[in-house]
Amino acid sequence: MLRTHRCSELRLKNKGENVVLSGWVKKTRDLGGMTFIDLRDRYGITQLVFDMDQDENLCTKARKLGREYVIQVKGEVRERSNKNPNIPTGDIEISAKELSVLNESKTPPFTIEDETDGGEELRMKYRYLDLRRNINQRNIKLRHQLALEIRKYLSTNDFLEIETPYLIKSTPEGARDFVVPSRLHPGEFYALPQSPQTFKQLLMISGYDRYFQVVRCFRDEDFRADRQPEFTQIDCEMSFVERQDIFNIFEGMCKHIFKEIKNIDLPEVRLMSWDNALKYYGTDKPDIRFGMEFVELNDIAQNKGFKVFDSVELVVGINAKGCAGYSRKQLDKLTDFVKRPQIGAKGLVYVKYNDDGSFKSSVDKFFTRDDLKKWAERFNAKPGDLMLLLAGDKMHVRKQLSELRLEMGDQLNLRKRDEFAPLWIVDFPLLEWDEENERYHAMHHPFTAAHHEDTRLLEIEPEKARANAYDFVINGVEVGGGSIRIHDHDTQQKMFNALGFTKEEAEKQFGFLLKAFEYGAPPHGGIAFGFDRLVALFGGTDSIRDYIAFPKNNAGRDIMIDSPATITEMQLNELSLKVH
Amino acid sequence: MLRTHRCSELRLKNKGENVVLSGWVKKTRDLGGMTFIDLRDRYGITQLVFDMDQDENLCTKARKLGREYVIQVKGEVRERSNKNPNIPTGDIEISAKELSVLNESKTPPFTIEDETDGGEELRMKYRYLDLRRNINQRNIKLRHQLALEIRKYLSTNDFLEIETPYLIKSTPEGARDFVVPSRLHPGEFYALPQSPQTFKQLLMISGYDRYFQVVRCFRDEDFRADRQPEFTQIDCEMSFVERQDIFNIFEGMCKHIFKEIKNIDLPEVRLMSWDNALKYYGTDKPDIRFGMEFVELNDIAQNKGFKVFDSVELVVGINAKGCAGYSRKQLDKLTDFVKRPQIGAKGLVYVKYNDDGSFKSSVDKFFTRDDLKKWAERFNAKPGDLMLLLAGDKMHVRKQLSELRLEMGDQLNLRKRDEFAPLWIVDFPLLEWDEENERYHAMHHPFTAAHHEDTRLLEIEPEKARANAYDFVINGVEVGGGSIRIHDHDTQQKMFNALGFTKEEAEKQFGFLLKAFEYGAPPHGGIAFGFDRLVALFGGTDSIRDYIAFPKNNAGRDIMIDSPATITEMQLNELSLKVH
Repeated sequence: MLRTHRCSELRLKNKGENVVLSGWVKKTRDLGGMTFIDLRDRYGITQLVFDMDQDENLCTKARKLGREYVIQVKGEVRERSNKNPNIPTGDIEISAKELSVLNESKTPPFTIEDETDGGEELRMKYRYLDLRRNINQRNIKLRHQLALEIRKYLSTNDFLEIETPYLIKSTPEGARDFVVPSRLHPGEFYALPQSPQTFKQLLMISGYDRYFQVVRCFRDEDFRADRQPEFTQIDCEMSFVERQDIFNIFEGMCKHIFKEIKNIDLPEVRLMSWDNALKYYGTDKPDIRFGMEFVELNDIAQNKGFKVFDSVELVVGINAKGCAGYSRKQLDKLTDFVKRPQIGAKGLVYVKYNDDGSFKSSVDKFFTRDDLKKWAERFNAKPGDLMLLLAGDKMHVRKQLSELRLEMGDQLNLRKRDEFAPLWIVDFPLLEWDEENERYHAMHHPFTAAHHEDTRLLEIEPEKARANAYDFVINGVEVGGGSIRIHDHDTQQKMFNALGFTKEEAEKQFGFLLKAFEYGAPPHGGIAFGFDRLVALFGGTDSIRDYIAFPKNNAGRDIMIDSPATITEMQLNELSLKVH
Repeated sequence: MLRTHRCSELRLKNKGENVVLSGWVKKTRDLGGMTFIDLRDRYGITQLVFDMDQDENLCTKARKLGREYVIQVKGEVRERSNKNPNIPTGDIEISAKELSVLNESKTPPFTIEDETDGGEELRMKYRYLDLRRNINQRNIKLRHQLALEIRKYLSTNDFLEIETPYLIKSTPEGARDFVVPSRLHPGEFYALPQSPQTFKQLLMISGYDRYFQVVRCFRDEDFRADRQPEFTQIDCEMSFVERQDIFNIFEGMCKHIFKEIKNIDLPEVRLMSWDNALKYYGTDKPDIRFGMEFVELNDIAQNKGFKVFDSVELVVGINAKGCAGYSRKQLDKLTDFVKRPQIGAKGLVYVKYNDDGSFKSSVDKFFTRDDLKKWAERFNAKPGDLMLLLAGDKMHVRKQLSELRLEMGDQLNLRKRDEFAPLWIVDFPLLEWDEENERYHAMHHPFTAAHHEDTRLLEIEPEKARANAYDFVINGVEVGGGSIRIHDHDTQQKMFNALGFTKEEAEKQFGFLLKAFEYGAPPHGGIAFGFDRLVALFGGTDSIRDYIAFPKNNAGRDIMIDSPATITEMQLNELSLKVH
């Protein structure tokens, strides 16, 4: 090794030892006859001292070192006169006796600091320098630890990690596939998997019973912020299970990783129907770290002459506890918030329940004190509270109020960083109607089973069938989702019918799975966790890009290696392809 | 759960318990008024008993079950009258009280047995049934265990598993890339990585210091037996290391997995130069479980009038100890063996050193007893030994003799299944001359450093430079390979020059790496293990396909899902591609 110790390791107890360190020059300071260098590696920082009086040549050499030079230093550990309590090695320094420059460095285009001066584009271009920053090192390490703990937990529970192929077959259903032209079979293509869904189901048919895989998945989407064309899933499947069995195992997994990584005891996981999630939180991934549930007021707020309310499908609001003192300005800001184009409300109605028991609202003209008193009862509001109401068609108004609820949660500091509130959302609709193409889409995917008692609906009122599907939500982030699967040929065929597949299409795309169902497929179900998002949740920031070593930008480009790029004519010819 | 126990779990101590089992019908036997069923799951087999006298309906239902039906049975554990000592549950059986058919099964196209009646093509088509066989379940589980133990070992040693991208950029150097057309950037392509080589080097530049990844790699090769277009590597890299540091860590890794998985103490790892490997074993991956080293005889076997020897570059042989008693027929078979077209020798010379001290050889006409005596001394042969000689040009004759040596190793039972002899091969040539294209190729890859003292040769006599590269060989199988890398811009540029890259080509393909070398790249090196091959070595069979859940055939097809396949016109149009 080109070092005897790491830059995080030495302490006072090592005083007098001769050591060798290697690392990057983080900072150089010349103070009179002394030169101090902070030497950095992945593990920490150690101070080096070069003394003009002791060795002029060596010190002069040290003074020429630039930021991010890679050096090796031999020297003696000694006690610092000026200790630094902020770093673990702050009691000591290395009195340098030899110095080798292992590699030089140009001045980096941005500072390698937590608060860097480099913009995102520049940092992505020099991602290898960006990755030297503490914050990124922490994120990459966190990702490693999480994956390892998940593997340990699942392995201890008899799951086998089984690698499924990356070169598979394109199925135009759902999102777009990335395809891979075959040179040896001209005109034919492999596809990269959007998930190993069918393969993990085949593994259940093979009897593997408890499967998982930390696996890359690919989706050729039109680019959106914070979506990556390749992403990582914790993909899992079990046989001979019912929904509750899946819940038990994966609640256990989440408890395990929260305990191991964050030393947090994850609270009990709540269960909420999709209907209730929308009704009380306006979203299928509610943040339940705080209450502030929606309250519907149609029966007591409509037909009082206020047209904005009278003409709509839903009048609904939340109670912002203790906010009756909000100023005009604060209320205007909230109104502006809900009127932003991304949210799109027309306006915001407020009712202050003042400390003295009186009401002050933006709709005083239309509603009496008694009316507002009734509202307050419905909201379970107390003097000092602020009621905020929106009106509109169900789908939109719920979404808008959901955003406002989160905003109020932030304002009232109810969304605490170190608090985690997990939740299963269940009883999704099995299908959703696609107006544009006049057909049903599977809300999860075409392999999801209906609730047992709803299976018969598939042929008569398919839109009423509830899926035996579930999403796992923590703090408003959907971290996983899955379902009990169809495991028999006939039901799967019926599902394909309901989705408008012809028999031929179903056969061409999923014939191998339909056939496999005829050879003893066991009841099974599973779940997949979005690993990038799970790490981001643990890391405490929103952008998944911060947790991917080499992410692509929003246009799907890797600007560091400059990819995608053209290929040679020879390559195109070998693939029997022409670009037009 | 649809079961209270697994099919491997119940013992005499469970006698009298009411249990629920689920699994597959492996075998049904009707004996008089009783029906016996072997119920199978991933974990084992349990015998079920249905009794006509006790419940006629139930027993009749059981008699109708076909092979591979999936059933659930409730019943009572009882002691068998006729115990089966061959299976762990052989002392008990389940007296069935309820039976549910969870799914039916057509008769499988082959038997789900270790010795199946299904040919490979058929088994690949129904891979999900093939995977039910014990032998495959064992292989898939072994693969899981190995990957987990490797991860544990490396993590304990501060390695971080870091995921590198699968959608990268095509570099026409080396083997062919699979490419992925970009829809959003028409005419541009991603490529799938042949290995994460450049990314792991960038991670070293980022300071990660100890990286690994169990990672899929892709190579678009013309198909050969037992090559897969996608394969898995244990990819590793370290900074601030010299060769011996890499050896220490990865010898440790191998010792760990042999101990954990096989409870074998791996012997010390030997070190052998590439020159010596070829000279003494005729191959760069010798099986050193046994000796039988090559002995060269030019000086004492040439110029004695035997033209076959006189005209060649090398006369070389091995000593098959104790084989002087080989019959005419056995010797003819050996001659046929070396003359097979895959081996291609013209003939085989033998010399029997008889127990009475006399010699009997196929070249008695040309050599005296004294001549042969000298040979015997060179071979360190004793009475009772058999010397086998080949002659020809160095490259070919060594390869031929290497095959013969392995054959004799097999015949003498010197290649024991449960013995493992690990070996580092070092000091490879850095470059090899490509006659066809009149240029040098990197023997490992263009990022491999020369031995320090040979670096200066790169510009004057490149063919003489030795690489600081190493292969890890166990029992004649190359399980891993790596090198100390070039870590400075100028040397890398010189290497590209030596390989005939123009400055522009180097810049276009590897500009990002050359640039990264300018910002403080630390000395680094690494290794990659072929995981499929490593698992096969542990599993004790040769074909890597046996250890891959869903392998492709020799033509790169997945015949189960029928891939590659055509894609729709719409897909092609979206990709701006035409097939010609």
